[in-house]
Amino acid sequence: MPTDKLLQQINFIKEIDKVKYIQRKTKLFNSDRNENDAEHSWHLAMMTIVLAEHADAPIDVLKVLKMVLIHDIVEIDAGDTFIYDTAKKHSNTDEERLAANRIFGMLPKEQADKFIAVWEEFENGETNEAKFARSMDRLEPLLQNTSNKGGTWAEFGVNYTKVYEKKKVIKDGSSSIWDYAENLINESVEKGILKK
Amino acid sequence: MPTDKLLQQINFIKEIDKVKYIQRKTKLFNSDRNENDAEHSWHLAMMTIVLAEHADAPIDVLKVLKMVLIHDIVEIDAGDTFIYDTAKKHSNTDEERLAANRIFGMLPKEQADKFIAVWEEFENGETNEAKFARSMDRLEPLLQNTSNKGGTWAEFGVNYTKVYEKKKVIKDGSSSIWDYAENLINESVEKGILKK
Repeated sequence: MPTDKLLQQINFIKEIDKVKYIQRKTKLFNSDRNENDAEHSWHLAMMTIVLAEHADAPIDVLKVLKMVLIHDIVEIDAGDTFIYDTAKKHSNTDEERLAANRIFGMLPKEQADKFIAVWEEFENGETNEAKFARSMDRLEPLLQNTSNKGGTWAEFGVNYTKVYEKKKVIKDGSSSIWDYAENLINESVEKGILKK
Repeated sequence: MPTDKLLQQINFIKEIDKVKYIQRKTKLFNSDRNENDAEHSWHLAMMTIVLAEHADAPIDVLKVLKMVLIHDIVEIDAGDTFIYDTAKKHSNTDEERLAANRIFGMLPKEQADKFIAVWEEFENGETNEAKFARSMDRLEPLLQNTSNKGGTWAEFGVNYTKVYEKKKVIKDGSSSIWDYAENLINESVEKGILKK
């Protein structure tokens, strides 16, 4: 007989399948197909493994992976919020907190508490790991938008100042990746795919 | 100026976006929508984090995560092979080896070698980490098929003996997860969604 613990874990594993249906505003590279949250989370995990050496501070890579893999699970209940949507707060809303409690709460208590703590650490963005995870989360759509002639910037009329403001947190995780990203933003203006 | 190393890594990150277009035979839970390799890899990573405590032998969770996150990247060139396709070998084909060399070879040399080694370790299935990673890879479609009234078993006429044969490697990673899985297979026969 499987233990209650294992059954709870299997039920959680089934529940999070819903992450695959949550569409982001951003499109895949050189594509008009929207990315979903599971694909996005996988890509951030791969970026973390590949780019970890560029972190300015020492990071626990396993912790960062946990953060990027779970960071959007709350959107099963709370939905995706577009980063340039000025009407809505983007992190740690009451709705997301309820979602975290419900979904991670499906796990055995001790494990649920750990998952919620990792999710909160990511949201708060204060530890080295959270800073690096958040820099990955900001870098991916920048790469996608530049591959898509401006992508969501063009689609939703987002200008240089707003993009620069959102992206500069990349610097908190890695100054060398920020140098690359800042250059990409400036080039986008020169190419006319991002309005000043 | 970004270093050549960082530029190589960014090019690799762009290239692996193609994993999101590779359709598996298996469908999402309670769904008729095919799963793609990026979604599958994300789900295995989540399962690894959630179920790691059930591993029979000590495992390096970070290593297992690397395995499940990268294991299907070779399919960008080699395509997905259906596990019950008897005409084709399922691991470490020449085609997959060429794909590994080309795709991981986009990374800086030292990193490329590490990625290829992790992929080979997974394919060989001999270490504790590879055994656990492979048990995750076999468990996910079992859960999906039972949620889909037999799913690919029904669709492609796969019987109990073939399923049991493929799934029993779960035991090499975790005897408690295998107990659960074996029970699920037997129940599927009783429910008439898997033919004896």
